[in-house]
Amino acid sequence: MCRWLAYSGRPIFLDTLVTQPSHSLVAQSLNSELNISPAGVLLSTNGDGFGIGWYNRRAEPGVFRDDKPAWHDENLKNLCHQVESHIFFAHIRATTTGDVQRTNCHPFQFKNWLFQHNGHVSDFEKIRRELQLDIAPELYPYLRGTTDSETFFMLALTYGLQENPKLALQKMVERVLQALERVNPKGVLNLSCALSDGDRLYTLRFSHNEEAMTQFYSSDTECIQDFDDQFELMPQGSIVVVSEPLDKASDKWKPIPANTFATIEANQVSSETFL
Amino acid sequence: MCRWLAYSGRPIFLDTLVTQPSHSLVAQSLNSELNISPAGVLLSTNGDGFGIGWYNRRAEPGVFRDDKPAWHDENLKNLCHQVESHIFFAHIRATTTGDVQRTNCHPFQFKNWLFQHNGHVSDFEKIRRELQLDIAPELYPYLRGTTDSETFFMLALTYGLQENPKLALQKMVERVLQALERVNPKGVLNLSCALSDGDRLYTLRFSHNEEAMTQFYSSDTECIQDFDDQFELMPQGSIVVVSEPLDKASDKWKPIPANTFATIEANQVSSETFL
Amino acid sequence: MCRWLAYSGRPIFLDTLVTQPSHSLVAQSLNSELNISPAGVLLSTNGDGFGIGWYNRRAEPGVFRDDKPAWHDENLKNLCHQVESHIFFAHIRATTTGDVQRTNCHPFQFKNWLFQHNGHVSDFEKIRRELQLDIAPELYPYLRGTTDSETFFMLALTYGLQENPKLALQKMVERVLQALERVNPKGVLNLSCALSDGDRLYTLRFSHNEEAMTQFYSSDTECIQDFDDQFELMPQGSIVVVSEPLDKASDKWKPIPANTFATIEANQVSSETFL
Amino acid sequence: MCRWLAYSGRPIFLDTLVTQPSHSLVAQSLNSELNISPAGVLLSTNGDGFGIGWYNRRAEPGVFRDDKPAWHDENLKNLCHQVESHIFFAHIRATTTGDVQRTNCHPFQFKNWLFQHNGHVSDFEKIRRELQLDIAPELYPYLRGTTDSETFFMLALTYGLQENPKLALQKMVERVLQALERVNPKGVLNLSCALSDGDRLYTLRFSHNEEAMTQFYSSDTECIQDFDDQFELMPQGSIVVVSEPLDKASDKWKPIPANTFATIEANQVSSETFL
Repeated sequence: MCRWLAYSGRPIFLDTLVTQPSHSLVAQSLNSELNISPAGVLLSTNGDGFGIGWYNRRAEPGVFRDDKPAWHDENLKNLCHQVESHIFFAHIRATTTGDVQRTNCHPFQFKNWLFQHNGHVSDFEKIRRELQLDIAPELYPYLRGTTDSETFFMLALTYGLQENPKLALQKMVERVLQALERVNPKGVLNLSCALSDGDRLYTLRFSHNEEAMTQFYSSDTECIQDFDDQFELMPQGSIVVVSEPLDKASDKWKPIPANTFATIEANQVSSETFL
Repeated sequence: MCRWLAYSGRPIFLDTLVTQPSHSLVAQSLNSELNISPAGVLLSTNGDGFGIGWYNRRAEPGVFRDDKPAWHDENLKNLCHQVESHIFFAHIRATTTGDVQRTNCHPFQFKNWLFQHNGHVSDFEKIRRELQLDIAPELYPYLRGTTDSETFFMLALTYGLQENPKLALQKMVERVLQALERVNPKGVLNLSCALSDGDRLYTLRFSHNEEAMTQFYSSDTECIQDFDDQFELMPQGSIVVVSEPLDKASDKWKPIPANTFATIEANQVSSETFL
Repeated sequence: MCRWLAYSGRPIFLDTLVTQPSHSLVAQSLNSELNISPAGVLLSTNGDGFGIGWYNRRAEPGVFRDDKPAWHDENLKNLCHQVESHIFFAHIRATTTGDVQRTNCHPFQFKNWLFQHNGHVSDFEKIRRELQLDIAPELYPYLRGTTDSETFFMLALTYGLQENPKLALQKMVERVLQALERVNPKGVLNLSCALSDGDRLYTLRFSHNEEAMTQFYSSDTECIQDFDDQFELMPQGSIVVVSEPLDKASDKWKPIPANTFATIEANQVSSETFL
Repeated sequence: MCRWLAYSGRPIFLDTLVTQPSHSLVAQSLNSELNISPAGVLLSTNGDGFGIGWYNRRAEPGVFRDDKPAWHDENLKNLCHQVESHIFFAHIRATTTGDVQRTNCHPFQFKNWLFQHNGHVSDFEKIRRELQLDIAPELYPYLRGTTDSETFFMLALTYGLQENPKLALQKMVERVLQALERVNPKGVLNLSCALSDGDRLYTLRFSHNEEAMTQFYSSDTECIQDFDDQFELMPQGSIVVVSEPLDKASDKWKPIPANTFATIEANQVSSETFL
């Protein structure tokens, strides 16, 4: 039950999206408007940690995570004002279970890969052991937290994420549904994910047994302009994917259909049905 | 713009009030219902730190403060489950200015005194220097944070809080209003405070140029009972003072009139007009 | 590679042992003198978190843990000054692997049990998965960190700690040695543990393939007196177990022999050979 | 009683100096070798927070500070691996007084200026009020912590740091000595500072009534090479200033004389006597 954004395009400073828009991700940490819980309640506060991940000149992405609320964090504000990147992620966390600690914050990193997620799965504590046992032994040492999200990422890596992302995510989802079926046939799985290897940006919107979490994208250069034109234009050809729009007008953001896997590369979005 | 509670009575475990009631202080950290900002906006999130203070067998009260949200803090939960006290304070913080750090969290302590506060003053950054210069030189080393609240406490100590609490608070308020008048004649001061020396509990509800922040008390043994009688009875003769009621029914909580200074001792509340 | 103490006796304030002695546990967080690494290097700094656990009137013990150094933590200082207990634990952490987060700090709790540990095992990352798979499925949800210590505790619980502590610890050690043998026949295991159910205090000093970590106890009422008699006397009949003495003289502390399991109950220490 | 480094030259990744050398700043956080206290004791642990500051494409420098030990902090490690800069600062803190909180961590920033410091002044708590009253009223709102270092920086800004750094530092030192003289004529002041406006790097090594804290610089491209040539060469013309050498050999580091103010610009060091 979190919020995130992902950017692909000509390098921009991270604060352009993370802190400046009228409904920026940091603003959403206090006042999210679309973060609806399984019980149908609006969870407006996403204060259980945050993280950013960005690609630059190094082979591996930079990652900065902290277990504090994003809204007053000066390190986050300062970094987003300084760092430029052509592909970057930002995430704010809201947890009803799971400890508030850096190792449970998104994005998760493995080598050149980044992964972030919002959503939930029923009865995770009942299937956690079964799923974690399926993580490849050579990957198990990289399991450092206790979230469903990290477990999903490690499973996807186990199933070949680095070679075929869509296939690996499908195998992961099937494996999770199989475990869920055993403990709770009416249980729900809801996944809104972003992944990257530093070249391509991948997104997934999927749900089982309930409505999918919202996911939008925009390739409109005016996507954060709002009513008064005070914000920057996005670079031509850039793509922004979000769990909820960053402006208050919202008419430049297109919903991504449920059960969609998208690949964003060289300013092009190609979508495929997932499962 | 915070929330707090204060208890005086036969010793009880702190969790009886801090974590267990349906609208407990910890619940209010995510979903406060009466924390209205000067602009008239409901500030439902109080996630910028918390603190508890309690009197027990030592000459000085215990104080535990952290700069994290209260809602998922296991230390807070554990301590409130273990610690018993006859006079205790609990506070959750929401700041629009001022750093999120332990030294800015309530309650503040000096020797056997505790102080906690919610409210605000206009233009504090413009009058902070003037007010802090009025702190007694021998007290200045105890100034460790940057909040208006701590400055108010140090001024009250300077003006004789330990000898005559009401008079010292009046002098403090007059001093703050004098400074405020100079920089902003229409500026507001809003104070909802609790203080104790370990024997008596004192409260103040005062405002200047706007409506006073809410403040309630209850001496009803069923004050946290709610609709389904699942919660504990308060001890006979106990008094609980809060910035908003701890139950959902709220009919056992009496508003304390604006501009009231109250002294609670031996289960008796005696109120006086303030200023 | 940590330091700890455990107390059993008439209730005392925790600061009597944790912060006041000349070589108190908090002093050891900066200047440990006996914390020798496997490579033979003195690790004088134990700054990777701390924790206390204590039994009082509740069925379950209180636990307070933080991921900061102990030496300047005011919460720790304040709590130890306020809390009294007849059986309590205190621990400071030094890690060369494993994240610095509260869920990796000692003592670990399960129901009425507390567990704390210093020591190490070779190649833990290579055997972690195998060992964690052996944790009983119903206990797996309680696995919240990534330390060897917590894994050992969960295994001991799996093997019957609550019924027969010594036998369960033996099974746990045998299981760990079996896993270690497979990946590194020359690997070492070094365990210096304290456990309690709230009635009895248990300790273990065990090592495999290297010299055991130091462990001492004292039943001398003058055990923290040092040269100048400025400290309190311990209550008659109390027992203090430590990883290094709390005074500078040290002649009132008796080494516990290697490979010893001890049971402390009603002021009596009974020792048994372990394995 | 801290450690720091400052770099000026062709842009390099920060980890080149902060984390990689055999006696890097992060290594010094656990094992400083030259951090001698006024009492003549080696303070090997600098675990009370850290910070980095760097100039890049923005008008103001980036600043990242945290109140944790540097030695296991992944955010620090990740950032230093990603961020490149032509002028940057890094600092690790050891305090015997003053709270461990981000607002007390170095470097301190004001507009385009950075300031970091190691050293101490006797009886700071007795002169703090007097000195802070001398801070220009328009700068007072920027005073956010409780350290001597920040007070010195605010005073230097008050006395014209942005126009004439050397003169402003002299006035600041004279003002501090005047205050010190009043409360403790034998009191000591020891300052080892680095400052920058983004164009020039300034350093000060000064002491009063005791030996000056160590300060070294190197313009040797092999200054972090150590015995086995495994580390990078520094860019031609770069200057590194440190409180203790970053290698184990140390023969490429030149002591800066006591009572010296240095200006580093365009790869040139020009030194002047201070006071």
